[in-house]
Parts: sequence; C-alpha cells; structure tokens
Amino acid sequence: MRVVDLIELKRDGKALPRAEVRGLFRAFLAGEVEDYQLSALLMAIFFRGMEGEELVGWTEEMMRSGDTFDFSHLPGHKVDKHSTGGVGDKVSLPLAPLLGACGLVVPMISGRGLGHTGGTLDKLESVAGFNTQQSAEGFERLLREVGVGLIGQTPSIVPVDRKLYALRDVTATVPSVPLIASSIMSKKLAEGSERLVLDVKVGRGAFMRTRDDARLLAQTCIRLGHGMGRDVRALLTQMDQPLGVMVGNALEVRETLDVLRGAGPADTRALTLRLAEELLAMCGLDPTLARERLDSGAALARFYDVVAAHGGDRRAVEDPRRLPTAPHRAPLLAPRDGYVSALDALKVGHAAVVLGAGRAVASDAVDPRVGFELVAKVGDRVARGEPLAWVEHAERGYEEAAAELLSAYEWSDEPVPPPALIYERVTVDGAAPYAPLC
Amino acid sequence: MRVVDLIELKRDGKALPRAEVRGLFRAFLAGEVEDYQLSALLMAIFFRGMEGEELVGWTEEMMRSGDTFDFSHLPGHKVDKHSTGGVGDKVSLPLAPLLGACGLVVPMISGRGLGHTGGTLDKLESVAGFNTQQSAEGFERLLREVGVGLIGQTPSIVPVDRKLYALRDVTATVPSVPLIASSIMSKKLAEGSERLVLDVKVGRGAFMRTRDDARLLAQTCIRLGHGMGRDVRALLTQMDQPLGVMVGNALEVRETLDVLRGAGPADTRALTLRLAEELLAMCGLDPTLARERLDSGAALARFYDVVAAHGGDRRAVEDPRRLPTAPHRAPLLAPRDGYVSALDALKVGHAAVVLGAGRAVASDAVDPRVGFELVAKVGDRVARGEPLAWVEHAERGYEEAAAELLSAYEWSDEPVPPPALIYERVTVDGAAPYAPLC
Repeated sequence: MRVVDLIELKRDGKALPRAEVRGLFRAFLAGEVEDYQLSALLMAIFFRGMEGEELVGWTEEMMRSGDTFDFSHLPGHKVDKHSTGGVGDKVSLPLAPLLGACGLVVPMISGRGLGHTGGTLDKLESVAGFNTQQSAEGFERLLREVGVGLIGQTPSIVPVDRKLYALRDVTATVPSVPLIASSIMSKKLAEGSERLVLDVKVGRGAFMRTRDDARLLAQTCIRLGHGMGRDVRALLTQMDQPLGVMVGNALEVRETLDVLRGAGPADTRALTLRLAEELLAMCGLDPTLARERLDSGAALARFYDVVAAHGGDRRAVEDPRRLPTAPHRAPLLAPRDGYVSALDALKVGHAAVVLGAGRAVASDAVDPRVGFELVAKVGDRVARGEPLAWVEHAERGYEEAAAELLSAYEWSDEPVPPPALIYERVTVDGAAPYAPLC
Repeated sequence: MRVVDLIELKRDGKALPRAEVRGLFRAFLAGEVEDYQLSALLMAIFFRGMEGEELVGWTEEMMRSGDTFDFSHLPGHKVDKHSTGGVGDKVSLPLAPLLGACGLVVPMISGRGLGHTGGTLDKLESVAGFNTQQSAEGFERLLREVGVGLIGQTPSIVPVDRKLYALRDVTATVPSVPLIASSIMSKKLAEGSERLVLDVKVGRGAFMRTRDDARLLAQTCIRLGHGMGRDVRALLTQMDQPLGVMVGNALEVRETLDVLRGAGPADTRALTLRLAEELLAMCGLDPTLARERLDSGAALARFYDVVAAHGGDRRAVEDPRRLPTAPHRAPLLAPRDGYVSALDALKVGHAAVVLGAGRAVASDAVDPRVGFELVAKVGDRVARGEPLAWVEHAERGYEEAAAELLSAYEWSDEPVPPPALIYERVTVDGAAPYAPLC
C-alpha cells in the first residue's frame, strides 16, 4: 500500500493494518518516507484516533523498530513506574531502590527534563560519576547485582518514537491520547518490565489538565499494556502544586535521601509508598512490605548500592553536603499575611528553567546545583516577611526566577484545606476513587 | 505566530488570521516553511474546514502570492467559465469565441489534462502554431484585438497553488471542499475576470460524484467569489457519460468546429449556449444573443480570428482535414443488441489516456491525433455488429484502450431515457432546479 493510501485510510476513519504500519516505520527509519506524509498521517490520527488492536499493533511495531530487553531469565518480578511528568516529581529516585529492597527487579529507562518538567536522568547525574549510559550487558549486570538499573534512552530503543516525537512537536500533533499512550508504552515495555504502574499527573503543572483527560490516557495505556500482555494500572495524582519541597536536580536528590531516611515531605514519602504498594499488590505480595523496607533503612542502603553500581560517588549520598551546592541561597519573602491558596506548578517549573535547573530546548545544559526549596505550600499560613521559599542560585536568572516564583503563589484570607495527593486508581476493570491498599 | 501555533489554531477549529496566512505563504514560497508543517495544516483544514472571511482571506492571499491581471481599463465585461473537469468537455473552445462574438471580453487561463480529464491547452495546441504561452502584454493584446485570450498557467500565477497541490496530492488532502474551492478561485480570479460561471460536473467521470457534493463546492466557490467582489454562479451538469461525441485533442477541435458551424452533438451545443446565456444574463444583457451569434456564424468567424491571433494555423480550422489525424481508424463493434444504459466517462477517459490522448503523470506528452468518436451514447439503440465508436489510434495502446472502451458500455434490453444535461443552477441566493433563461 502506498503511504498516501494509508493516510487516506486513517483520514476516512479506518484502522491502520498492522503489516502496513510495520512497513511504514521501517521505511520511515530508512529515510524512505517523507516527513510531510508522516505529519499528515499524524494529524489524521489526531482527529480519528486509534484504538483496540490497531493501537496495540501501532505500539508494538514502534517498540519492535529497535532493541528490546527481555529479562525473563532473571529471578524476581520485573516492575517499573512511569510518571507523565511534573514539577518536583523525584519519586523514581526513592521508589526504585525501595522496590529493589522489596525483592523486585526494576529495569527503568528514563528521560531528561524538557520544558517545565524535570528528568530523572538529570537528577541522578547530579551525583558525581553516576553513569546512566549503559550497554545492554551493563543494564543486565545492574539488575543482577543491585536489582535496579537506571538508564537513559539510547538511539536504538524505539528509534521511531524519537523521529515521530520530533515531528509531532512541530506539527501540533502532541496532544493525541493514542499517540501519547503509544509513545509511553512502546518505551516502557521495550525495557522488559512485566508490571507497570503509571503515575498520571493531573493539574496546572501536568500535561493533562483535567481528571477526565488523565483518566482517558490512563485507560488507554492500561488497555494497550494488556493488549501487549503486560499488567498495568495507574494512579491519578495531583500536580497543581509541585510535589515535595525541593525543585532542582541535586536538591531533589537531597529530598530523596530525606525520604529514604524516614523523613522528608509527607507527600513525596506518601506517593513513593503508595506506588510501591501498588506494584507489590500487582505481584501478589504484601503491600505493607514497602513501609517496612523504607522504615528499616533497607531502601536507603539499597540506594547507596545502586549509586555505587552505576559508578556514582557513594560518599556524596552518604553525606549530602558533598552534593553540588549553589553558591547563593536567598530567601523569597512573603509579601503579605495569609494562607497559600495555590502554588502554580507550571510557573515554578518555568522559574526553575530560568535559573538553569531545566531545559528550554533539548540541547540546553542543566546546572545541577540550582533550584528552589519551597517552605510554604498550599494550605500553609504565612506571615508577611517570612520566607516562602529559598532560591538556590548561581546568579543566572535569579531576579526573573524569584519574581516568577513569587507570582506562582496565590493567597487567601481564609484557611485553605491542603489538596488531595491521589485522586483515583485506574485498573483494567475501571476507575475508582483512590483507597489505600494497607 | 510560529507555524506550529497556526497549525494548532486550525486543529482546534479556530479561523486562520489573514495576516498569518500571508506570512505563511510568503515563507512557504521562500522555502522557509517545512513541507511537513504545511501538510499537517492541510490535514487539519481537511477536518476543520475553512469558511467565510477566513476562506476569502486564504484564497486572496493565495492569489496575491503571484502575478494578477487587471483589465478594468479595457472596455466591456470581463467574463470567464471554469469547468471542474470531465471527459469530452471541450466547451471552453466554442464558448470563448461565442462570448467574444457577443461583445464580452474573455481572459481565460486554462490547464493541461491530467488523469482521465482532458485539458483546454492540449486541445488548442493540436492546432499548429497555437501559442498558449503568452506574456502579460501578449495576453492584453489578445483581449484588445479579438476579445479572447486563451493562455496557460505560468509559474508566476498563484505560485503557492502549485506547491500546495503537489503536497495535497501525496498527503490525501485533495478532497477538501475549501481547498478545492480556493485552488479554483485563486487562479480564476487572478486572471482579471469580473463575472464567472462555473460548470460543476457531477457523476462517474467527475471529481464530484454526487449532486450534494457538487452543490456544496459550487456554493463555496460562489460565496468565495462574492467575498472577493466578483459575480459567480454555477450550473451542475451531467458527467456520468462523456460530453459530445469526440474524446481526444484534435478530435475535440473538430467537434468545436461542428458546433460553431451550427451542427455538432446536441449536448455540446446546448451546454455551450446555456453557459453563454448565464454570463450574458449576469452582465445584464439579453441571453438570446448567444444563439443569434452562434447561428449567424459570428462565433465561428471569431474562432478563426482567435486562432490566428494566438499564432495558430487559420487554415487548419477553416479546413479541419488539416488538423492532425491518427493513422488508423478502427470501429468498436456492438457485442449485442440493446439499449446503451450507461457509458462510464471515467473508463472512457482512462482508455483515452492509454491511447496517448492524455497524461497519466504531468510529465507525459500527449498525442494530439488519437482518441474516440462515440457513435452510441446512453439511450441509443444498437444492433449487434454495428459500430459503437471509432478508435482513432497510432497503434500504441490500441487493444487495451478498445477493450476498456467496450467495458465502459453497459446495456439494457428496455429503452433507456437519455440523461439530463443540466441539473441545477446555483447562485448566491441558493440552488434551484435548472430552468432555461430563454
């Protein structure tokens, strides 16, 4: 079938045949399909959607466009978590060693920060020596030795996703649920995990602004995962304000260490535990194991081992004063008395990019040292002149970032209830209000 | 506005701002906009449409992307006809001199044949010396001298249409009413005509297969023309079977001469008169003038002058035996007794391409000599072994073409009424069943 006929098929609302999709991706990677045909197809998919077998076929063919991992010969459940991205969302860092300490195997392929959201790789690399660029053999060695492999995308993992994403980005075809779901699931399932929990963020700082949109994405990913023979469920979680108190790469490693030491902000700790509990339950294990392994220090010890196994400086996490530190720490003072009624995560994320903690475009470098420590969050009462936050900076962008951070705070004279952390659990059986497993 | 933002606007169903469209076309012609962005925009337009001021803006900016003509300083009404394309549709050839003989001025820019439909330029060029490649000065001189200028598209007339069409052709975005209407109207209105009649073909051999589709296209073009300050109306006409009896370039010139001599097939003669009557009425003139100038021989004389003024061989039209003639003329014999119930114009057109009368791709050359003379058309009673048609050929493709032509005939044992020629008249006030003006 010619590419133009395939576009016409989708334009007219028909399903794309899997064999044609395979040929299309093969030709696209070989440079034999014009970008202008792919972009027209993507826009037709935006309008017509993809579902059922068609979406499974599209996603599996994406996955099979490159290398895939199979760790079924390793003992233990292979599990992973994927977050759709938010501000201050460092949960992968404490969660992966916690899961490892529970006896699960965690092959986790992560990305870098872009726009207002941070990236797990950038955070990990603020630990001196931490190497996220591993060979397939290196990845397997990590799983054998410490049960956790934290690596970056490589050009050979789902290569068609990279090309499709670049095209979607410049053709206004990013916000398509089947395209988002296939991008997430092709990469997550290429890494060889058998069970996956999705943390689908909802709110101002998230890609999905409404719970309905988030639920639809979750359901699409879950059906897709099941169609590909994997067990997937999702939690819909709050991302109107940042998660935790630290925003910035080394700062988020500090918060990770606090959580692993049994302290840290309640929301980061809770979300880490709740996601671990979901995966334990999916594996048929006792979900209370998560809290036990966190409180016993086993997860912290595993984190040290994970850092060392990836070539990172173990001393830098054993003694966080050795982590990169910004040369300046300036308070952001409350301009009034009152209750914080909102703390716009999108603005906080943008302000962090201005400081150098994130990337406006993919080729930017990040400064691991800079970021924010948020003292006041939604529901907190503050008196004028007290610190709302601390800005850890290296002069670059300081005034602009501080002003944007201040503008992210909204105020009320009346008490404001703190927001919920987890809204819903979505499984293959449907969506329901979140209820704890233990 | 960035191109991606413009795509997003249309994707979300908003109108494209005219100033942005102007900038887009300018950048596209300068090679500064990627084809993959344009094709995504075209697909978004396919789904979301364009209407009202937006479509007027899009079309005027297309038109103004290149040279436009203004003949308002010449005396007389400037008029033109556009056909959406069919098989055996040679009406422009007798119509243009007839309009000239009625005192109207006819700046007509035509195209070449592609696929199953013939092109006015190819037909005219079967007259030795006829030059359709004229400068702007040459075009105006023709209008001054003989009231009729028959020229071809040049790269400087609506250049953006050529690029857009090439992209639409390979991205399944051809069948979009606003894109078709803007392509037609930008070119037709660039030529400086004030009043335009559209012959919108309906049926098997036409781009529009149903009367509803044809009416929608007509209404879109009419509203667009009015939005651009021009007077436009349309007739919806039959294109299930070919128009007239001749299909092929020099053969269609022969039929033209028959019509101009007061003879020729009834349908070609009638459609020529009816279209002329519409334009005369639009100019506030007496529509009976058309028949008078045809029957008086004034239109024929004007045709001779038009041919000569374009550098063509006047003797070749005064004595049609001087027109190019195929070396072979073979009868296609009726395989049975019966009534012709259908004569599939699409198949006839394809068969003519096989003979060499048309083009499969734009770079093909055409053979002016070859084609068909259709003896039997829908409603005719034929006895087995009588000629259905004559195939004028130069050996190339003869057997395949004859077989395809035969397959275009469908049969009935019962009498079949001849089809209507004109279905509806569409004006800015709406559509109504066609009723003659005189």
